[in-house]
Amino acid sequence: MPFELTILGTSSATPTLDRHPSAQFLIFGEHYILIDCGEAAQMQLMRYGLKSFKIDIIVISHLHPDHYLGLPGLVSSLSLKGRKEPLYIYCPKGLQEIMEVQFLYGEMHLSYPIHFHTLENKGEKLIFEDKNLDIISFPVKHRVPCWGFVFQEKKYPRKINKDLPEPQKLPVEAYSIFRQGKDYTGPDGVVMNYLDYTIPNDPPVCYTYITDTLFLPEVAKSLAKYNIDLLYHEATFLSDLKNKADDTYHSTAAEAAEFARLSGAKKLLIGHFSSRYSDLSPLLEEARKTVPETYLALEGECFKSHPNN
Amino acid sequence: MPFELTILGTSSATPTLDRHPSAQFLIFGEHYILIDCGEAAQMQLMRYGLKSFKIDIIVISHLHPDHYLGLPGLVSSLSLKGRKEPLYIYCPKGLQEIMEVQFLYGEMHLSYPIHFHTLENKGEKLIFEDKNLDIISFPVKHRVPCWGFVFQEKKYPRKINKDLPEPQKLPVEAYSIFRQGKDYTGPDGVVMNYLDYTIPNDPPVCYTYITDTLFLPEVAKSLAKYNIDLLYHEATFLSDLKNKADDTYHSTAAEAAEFARLSGAKKLLIGHFSSRYSDLSPLLEEARKTVPETYLALEGECFKSHPNN
Repeated sequence: MPFELTILGTSSATPTLDRHPSAQFLIFGEHYILIDCGEAAQMQLMRYGLKSFKIDIIVISHLHPDHYLGLPGLVSSLSLKGRKEPLYIYCPKGLQEIMEVQFLYGEMHLSYPIHFHTLENKGEKLIFEDKNLDIISFPVKHRVPCWGFVFQEKKYPRKINKDLPEPQKLPVEAYSIFRQGKDYTGPDGVVMNYLDYTIPNDPPVCYTYITDTLFLPEVAKSLAKYNIDLLYHEATFLSDLKNKADDTYHSTAAEAAEFARLSGAKKLLIGHFSSRYSDLSPLLEEARKTVPETYLALEGECFKSHPNN
Repeated sequence: MPFELTILGTSSATPTLDRHPSAQFLIFGEHYILIDCGEAAQMQLMRYGLKSFKIDIIVISHLHPDHYLGLPGLVSSLSLKGRKEPLYIYCPKGLQEIMEVQFLYGEMHLSYPIHFHTLENKGEKLIFEDKNLDIISFPVKHRVPCWGFVFQEKKYPRKINKDLPEPQKLPVEAYSIFRQGKDYTGPDGVVMNYLDYTIPNDPPVCYTYITDTLFLPEVAKSLAKYNIDLLYHEATFLSDLKNKADDTYHSTAAEAAEFARLSGAKKLLIGHFSSRYSDLSPLLEEARKTVPETYLALEGECFKSHPNN
């Protein structure tokens, strides 16, 4: 299914002239997902020609201002444009209150409903599920409660072999049974072996987003089971500022790469860069020592289709 | 004293690719004043090389999101940069609560104090005063409580004539008495006529900011006493959308100009343009029919020194 990740912002707490605060726009199957929503995210969506009115899911990692301040403006603009469809926001406790006090004093009555879901601070939790997609939250370690997210495609392990002669003669119900890797018994009692009708499917796509955290090797190991194709991990500092990273509960580029290695992620995206770095190449070089397939999460960059290609 | 107004944003509720929500940066004498603080104002301050850490006064007209959503990010970034000086915010009831709930859940402890002052909905009020500057608030008429602001230079009506021979021989205390247009009697009993030592001063500079309001001719007439040099008045729509302007409690460009005429303002700046207008020249032309000295408040435009020049 379609996978298209666009970086809207990649600055740490203080923005710079060319780096907005954290926000990412993810088209994954039928869903349009906003991951964090730093200040001016609505303008960034506009700048890159993205369909903000299609967003149905928003996940917010934590309540530091550089990760959610764009939300009230986006929510308000969607209402002014007459949106009707509900919006689902998965966020830390407190965001609903923060938003509602603004609606109260602005006397705002949105044209669509928002459903807030509070994240739980107890290990991995399946926070969203439909037939094609799972979203899992897991706590990380920052100065305030903070979460990472796994976006995992759901997929049958096998798919119908379209090169077979006359596959259209199969009964409709046989398709889903074969895709699950099971034999099908027809109304005439004839057993059809799934291996004759199917081939192995492409593996499901998995994207994982982790921002604002100390380096957590145990979490990395526990995420290995997801077969992560693309991992975004914050890399606020270079290793020479490891002490500052620890003091502020952030990670270095080397730690982001070590996290990627331990989790088995096939590609690494680093971001959330401190405003002190105008040249980001040293951060890239530091991470690439451990994970050659590392890329900078630069604004406007788009990672399409299977992220492992 | 120095007067330097920079437009940071001039869009109405929904921003456009090249128009941010309302915000203006005013250097007036010793004060660095932010007038409204729409989303991304901190990035706009950066873009135009303005000294955000020098801002000592912020006035917020009302609590619609396009007029204050940039405030939490700016306030947070100033703290991250280690600001110590207090910040004075003049705003509608509710903004302090909106900000404090964000500080609470973000576990933010600012490096400097903020003093919130709630605007009063009862005619003109002197909300700030020092030896060189008065700031006056007055209610306008929008869907939520909303205020306009007069920024009025304080000035002696006369100044010392520096071309007089040996003016330095005057006793120090004589200067301020002469500047007030009074005679000075020396210790020897000799009366010195102020007219011999002074010339008329330049008139004090007055800037007035009015956004998000129905056209209010009575308010315009009552502001005539201030001798407004430069008036910013919202002009969300052209006159062909007068009904829409009325329905949404906004003004047309023609109404902004008529307000300027009635108030006796010498120059008019129009802004807060609806996102439907990509070409703003029809708005300018409409206002110029009444006030030829009308200009568009475009982002990055700067109005320096005496605004009447």
